[in-house]
Amino acid sequence: MSAPATCTVDIEVRYVETDQMGVVHHANYIPWFEIARTRLCGDTGWRYAEIEELGYLLMVTAVQVKYRQGARYGDTLQVTARVDDVWSRGVSYTYEVRREGTLLTTGRSEHVWIDRETRKPTRLPPELESAMERLAGADEPQT
Amino acid sequence: MSAPATCTVDIEVRYVETDQMGVVHHANYIPWFEIARTRLCGDTGWRYAEIEELGYLLMVTAVQVKYRQGARYGDTLQVTARVDDVWSRGVSYTYEVRREGTLLTTGRSEHVWIDRETRKPTRLPPELESAMERLAGADEPQT
Amino acid sequence: MSAPATCTVDIEVRYVETDQMGVVHHANYIPWFEIARTRLCGDTGWRYAEIEELGYLLMVTAVQVKYRQGARYGDTLQVTARVDDVWSRGVSYTYEVRREGTLLTTGRSEHVWIDRETRKPTRLPPELESAMERLAGADEPQT
Amino acid sequence: MSAPATCTVDIEVRYVETDQMGVVHHANYIPWFEIARTRLCGDTGWRYAEIEELGYLLMVTAVQVKYRQGARYGDTLQVTARVDDVWSRGVSYTYEVRREGTLLTTGRSEHVWIDRETRKPTRLPPELESAMERLAGADEPQT
Repeated sequence: MSAPATCTVDIEVRYVETDQMGVVHHANYIPWFEIARTRLCGDTGWRYAEIEELGYLLMVTAVQVKYRQGARYGDTLQVTARVDDVWSRGVSYTYEVRREGTLLTTGRSEHVWIDRETRKPTRLPPELESAMERLAGADEPQT
Repeated sequence: MSAPATCTVDIEVRYVETDQMGVVHHANYIPWFEIARTRLCGDTGWRYAEIEELGYLLMVTAVQVKYRQGARYGDTLQVTARVDDVWSRGVSYTYEVRREGTLLTTGRSEHVWIDRETRKPTRLPPELESAMERLAGADEPQT
Repeated sequence: MSAPATCTVDIEVRYVETDQMGVVHHANYIPWFEIARTRLCGDTGWRYAEIEELGYLLMVTAVQVKYRQGARYGDTLQVTARVDDVWSRGVSYTYEVRREGTLLTTGRSEHVWIDRETRKPTRLPPELESAMERLAGADEPQT
Repeated sequence: MSAPATCTVDIEVRYVETDQMGVVHHANYIPWFEIARTRLCGDTGWRYAEIEELGYLLMVTAVQVKYRQGARYGDTLQVTARVDDVWSRGVSYTYEVRREGTLLTTGRSEHVWIDRETRKPTRLPPELESAMERLAGADEPQT
């Protein structure tokens, strides 16, 4: 087993993301998680946009965030997404937001596969099995 | 000719809509215009959601906003939408945002009819002609 | 002990809150929680804006959301906030989002009192003790 | 006279920025303009965050956007800000959003200098005069 896939993206705080407390509003970390998560997918060979074209959606079923320190306008942050678990019907990720090494925020999200047409839960699309294995960090079969 | 249709909605400023300047971020007035505009549609007998179900979209082609005074968290604002013009292929609206009578912001938006399938511009859907006449304030034909 | 304070607000889904999946984007429930929570505060006699004027902030330290069913444009939702716990240095709330009785989403958030000047955690401001007792559902002393 | 300063930033469309029409919601271009505009400031030697630290705000007084073609999730866009005009009490910018050379959107914004303490309009802060001259494209004085 190799380690689960991980991806870190730089996020520059947008002015619109601050609130009158002078820090980033707590709701605005969640789209950052999404950016890191989809970049992570891209790194393992599929883009999220393609999943939707194949007829599937990855629907968010849960999200949690813990805030330790506020991010500010002018900050460039490192947002890391890591695969937490991959199962037949879904996938979960964990997240860390850092500023120059200092951990500001952690998070986790859960997602299930949905058939785009029926809007019902479905199993991992066969087309994506090998990509999900790469995400999960499973070794490629030896030959 | 009767006057063009108008509609005023109360908007309570959301904390997330403020920025670190301590006022509402300028981008956040545009969704308020949308709320007033769709409420106005509803008042004349069609809901925007139904338009999409009929196979049409009203695509925004232009928007402008002038800011005179900032709105703040804790404010309840009156956002007024008024039909500015109705033509065969689109419609435009003007907007005013007030706090207890004081004019804070004005705006204008233009929209064209789009066929949802082809994504091409189209003429005013026949199903909506009488509703658009009510919006434009044209007198109902005398009998 | 009476029951903890609770407050339900009607939320009309905004078009801007939807995403290309055709449902409300999962980040957009969090500002709704905030609206219900601050309305709940208002019901017990203090407005959140006044807390900041008194020199305090209620900083969010954690939030979690579980999504069971998607909300759609055109929906009017009932968002309920309920006090979960009140302690000397903070307060937590739980949330439910319903559409005509059907539970769509649940959530929870934690908050700590912050001194606005020093930006350090602080104890419950004395000016707010009785309001927080009403929030927590403690009986008023019998006379 | 040299040409006015210009700056182009790459923007990857965020999922949360789409709406149920399948394109980016029209309000979400305005924060992109802000990113390009503040990057442009940074290029000429001052960061917007520093302006606020100096005791000034650049308050938006007007914004307009024209939409020709919709941006989509998965797109990487080029957003260009260009100084339009610089005067003693404010500055205006124009914007272009392109996808692989195709012009999707144009815009313009106006801003006035505000004293952060009094919240009143003020003249261009002396500390920023030379930076604004660089923005406006005026030649440096010959020696």
